[in-house]
Amino acid sequence: MADYRELWESLDMDLEKHDELCQVLPEFYGDIYMTQEKRPEGMNYFNFVISEIHGLRIKELNEHRKNGKKVFGSFCVFVPDEVILAADGIGVGLCGGSEFWVPDGEKVLPRNMCPLIKASVGAKISGTCPYFQSADMLVGETTCDGKKKAWEILEDYIPMHVMDLPQMKREKDKENFKDEIKIFKEKVEEVTGNKVSAESLKETIKLVNNKRKTLQRLYNTRKAENLPISGKDALLITQVAFYDDTNRFIDKVNELCDELENRIEEKVSVFKEGTPRILLTGTPMAIPNWKMHHLIETSGGAVVCEEACTGTKYFERLVDEDNEDLDSQLRALSERYMGINCACFSPNDGRIDDIIRLYKEYNADGVIYNSLPFCHTYAIEYKKVKDALEKEGIPVIMIETDYSLQDAGQINTRLEAFFEMINMNKELAI
Amino acid sequence: MADYRELWESLDMDLEKHDELCQVLPEFYGDIYMTQEKRPEGMNYFNFVISEIHGLRIKELNEHRKNGKKVFGSFCVFVPDEVILAADGIGVGLCGGSEFWVPDGEKVLPRNMCPLIKASVGAKISGTCPYFQSADMLVGETTCDGKKKAWEILEDYIPMHVMDLPQMKREKDKENFKDEIKIFKEKVEEVTGNKVSAESLKETIKLVNNKRKTLQRLYNTRKAENLPISGKDALLITQVAFYDDTNRFIDKVNELCDELENRIEEKVSVFKEGTPRILLTGTPMAIPNWKMHHLIETSGGAVVCEEACTGTKYFERLVDEDNEDLDSQLRALSERYMGINCACFSPNDGRIDDIIRLYKEYNADGVIYNSLPFCHTYAIEYKKVKDALEKEGIPVIMIETDYSLQDAGQINTRLEAFFEMINMNKELAI
Repeated sequence: MADYRELWESLDMDLEKHDELCQVLPEFYGDIYMTQEKRPEGMNYFNFVISEIHGLRIKELNEHRKNGKKVFGSFCVFVPDEVILAADGIGVGLCGGSEFWVPDGEKVLPRNMCPLIKASVGAKISGTCPYFQSADMLVGETTCDGKKKAWEILEDYIPMHVMDLPQMKREKDKENFKDEIKIFKEKVEEVTGNKVSAESLKETIKLVNNKRKTLQRLYNTRKAENLPISGKDALLITQVAFYDDTNRFIDKVNELCDELENRIEEKVSVFKEGTPRILLTGTPMAIPNWKMHHLIETSGGAVVCEEACTGTKYFERLVDEDNEDLDSQLRALSERYMGINCACFSPNDGRIDDIIRLYKEYNADGVIYNSLPFCHTYAIEYKKVKDALEKEGIPVIMIETDYSLQDAGQINTRLEAFFEMINMNKELAI
Repeated sequence: MADYRELWESLDMDLEKHDELCQVLPEFYGDIYMTQEKRPEGMNYFNFVISEIHGLRIKELNEHRKNGKKVFGSFCVFVPDEVILAADGIGVGLCGGSEFWVPDGEKVLPRNMCPLIKASVGAKISGTCPYFQSADMLVGETTCDGKKKAWEILEDYIPMHVMDLPQMKREKDKENFKDEIKIFKEKVEEVTGNKVSAESLKETIKLVNNKRKTLQRLYNTRKAENLPISGKDALLITQVAFYDDTNRFIDKVNELCDELENRIEEKVSVFKEGTPRILLTGTPMAIPNWKMHHLIETSGGAVVCEEACTGTKYFERLVDEDNEDLDSQLRALSERYMGINCACFSPNDGRIDDIIRLYKEYNADGVIYNSLPFCHTYAIEYKKVKDALEKEGIPVIMIETDYSLQDAGQINTRLEAFFEMINMNKELAI
């Protein structure tokens, strides 16, 4: 990695503490990712992205900022990137996925909270995440109590804008969210100094749709009987989608997809035949949280799809591209984003439909319901999901776990038992 | 207590399990309440209310229902009783305050949740609370993730209506909540078969304001140097306010206030001179949760005010009575309810102002920030409150505790140390 110390220093980072983080990540990544066999060539780009995670992209952001562009950090799939891009801004996803940041988060937040929020806040207040340091403004939302109240604390450190997401999906809620997007647009215009025009928004709606289509293409390859890519590689790609340059990302993923589609024709699989195919559903997995995927794929399973923010929630459903005026475009954005079946909505039966549909589309053998601790919305929703899946005869278990590796052995044991049960069911079915 | 078994049976209750509950409550109440010295005579009514807690009022509700009236159960100070009463319905607050119901709640909810929600759901699904059994409809709201998602589970047991409370307090949010009240009014009209007219709503707005004024009168007596009533007695009265007949309640509390105001003139106090005066702030204390008050008042302190849903949030701020048409009345209701400074709002700086104002009004010596476990909104908000109080030189501690008595000794120790510190400060100030 090139020497970025000067750059980091200019971002007012805690260099000493940041060094500690930089020391652990390469080995952590190496153990989880580089040990995989038959990885697609196209993953080299993502190895590079990770090796440069606090370097090259930060340098790019820095250069953009020198040219007067603004960077908006966000934490949620409900923040419309289209609007940021249309004002010539740059959006980067900032959710904290590392245990490293949790203790700093706990300095200002209760311990009884999900590690994602603690890590996100800890990353900012410790000054050890260059993405936070590169943001001109953070964009929060009211998707859960923890985040909603954490923004009030983050606000002491950096300018914040919070979007109020409705809690239901009635017609009036969609109108309300359209209004929130409008308010957000005005804020983005104020910060960037650039107007969002119907023309520019039309273009960025297309661009972000293309990113979604590219990810859909990637995920489609995981529906094949022979899996051309591991679940953890696919997860990594989705995680990178949140902060990489959009056009480059689309190109690189499409290149990879060419390779994967070839693999499907040639019946190349990264898993041995009969490996239980798992649909993972639940809370987001922010980079570098690869824990569940790694545990599943080293316990005899393969993740074929993520019904999660770092998964289908991020790219399914496109924004209608056929609108010529801002008002209709904002409404179309609201329609698309309010189509996401997040557990923050009540009721949220659409998520159950999604899970069953994805289970079938991806030929899954079982569902793992993964939840970060203290995530009330996803934890409570488990009951309804479980009841519905059991009615369909779909095997499901819930695993609640944070970022630490203390419970890895215990989760392994549970996973092995789950996969054994799935394999027995399969044998009985033959 | 009269024999209500036939009545309970008609409400489809689990009589055997309910007997267990009935066996513990009188002794529990006796230990906490009847051991107090110099209690006001006027508390006899409330002793009676508790002795008949699952009897007389249930019988009344039952008779109302026989006459075609409908009963609406609610869980939050944001549900406008005025609307229910205006359609000749009856509103009863239903939050569960007993450990007894927690295990049943945990059958359908995660354990990592606040005991209030677990007890509320457990009370319904166990069939051991005659108030739940007397309700024709439950009214939920989206004040926290836990409740919002718990309604989806309760809905399998009883008809539910959920009001979407905005998460912010902008002008458009007040309009939105007005709209929610309108939707609620229509639902109430549908369930009761009665129209809400501007005339009937004008009357019930006055009636509920009178209840608020009566509670304000009661609380005003606690501002006196000589405390004429204990904190736990005042808490009990507020808890009873949620389900007693409104007119009777107003009469009985006014009678009590006559006595308390006499006591103030005669300098009668239920606490010895110099007892540290505590403002309690935080999560609601649903009946029969008297834990914190009992611990404080047996550890050498006196609670002089509750900045809580079971406290000032319930009765401060009146609804404007001078509106003649429904639309203006609904707006006035929204204004009043949206004036409540609940931690569910972001930002919620108004609560900090309230706490400092109440601290001064009630001549408090310290603030105890009380939170049920896993209540993210109140737990996170502690930091801002603490920072603000420390700036004002106001002593504050946070105590997070559930309904069980296992931590009573530990809390006692912390309280004694807190009161000692307060007393030392007072001596230094002289």
